[in-house]
Amino acid sequence: MHAALVGLSLHHVGIVVRDLDVAADSYRVLGFRDDERFVMPEQGIEAVTFPSGSGYLELIQPSDPEGAIARFMEKRGDSLHHVAFGTPDIVAELRRLDDSGVRLIDTLPRTGAHGWQVAFVHPESCNGVLVELVQVAQS
Amino acid sequence: MHAALVGLSLHHVGIVVRDLDVAADSYRVLGFRDDERFVMPEQGIEAVTFPSGSGYLELIQPSDPEGAIARFMEKRGDSLHHVAFGTPDIVAELRRLDDSGVRLIDTLPRTGAHGWQVAFVHPESCNGVLVELVQVAQS
Repeated sequence: MHAALVGLSLHHVGIVVRDLDVAADSYRVLGFRDDERFVMPEQGIEAVTFPSGSGYLELIQPSDPEGAIARFMEKRGDSLHHVAFGTPDIVAELRRLDDSGVRLIDTLPRTGAHGWQVAFVHPESCNGVLVELVQVAQS
Repeated sequence: MHAALVGLSLHHVGIVVRDLDVAADSYRVLGFRDDERFVMPEQGIEAVTFPSGSGYLELIQPSDPEGAIARFMEKRGDSLHHVAFGTPDIVAELRRLDDSGVRLIDTLPRTGAHGWQVAFVHPESCNGVLVELVQVAQS
């Protein structure tokens, strides 16, 4: 048994969109600014992130028609895709979750937008929701 | 025209769940603590919120089988429902969005969990995603 985890802090939401430029314009009208764009062919996506308070809004467009995000888009259309929580030590967090019987998609972190170290938890362990962990600086 | 809005800060994500107790247990296993429960019959829901960094995770169970959340649940099952952003002046924010041609569900705020003053923006103006605004203290 491990001690209760503390500090899973809301970090970003990921939204799958058919057209990144159209979607980014929608959020600019809402008032979001200072977006950055990332091309990530190894994940079959392009992404735009907007800073939002201490977190981010992440828009994700499939670039690989065979990829997981393209399949999600076919099934759901433009919609919320995942929620991400920050943790100061992602490797320790993944180990603790694994030891607690949580089903992980990634047992080790990989690199996401902004060079973030990220890992996904399987929706089976999160009541149907895709949860991402992101390593953040110790607060 | 209004000046660019600043400070739409990521506040919470809302997740619709079939069984609030089962869902809350899943998130406790992930490490979330200190939840609060709210019964809101006027909205046809019960909710559990967990603090998460400077934001929250909100689990929502339909309590009215004819309500909007029950209909969402029938269509989508347990899944991400909305994303909420904090603003220091929700009334002014709604006025500005309305003036910018953004389609609002609520043109005036109403009361949500925790007594928060909240208002929803129509998904049509947010690329298919249901966006909520929440009044937060000026930071």
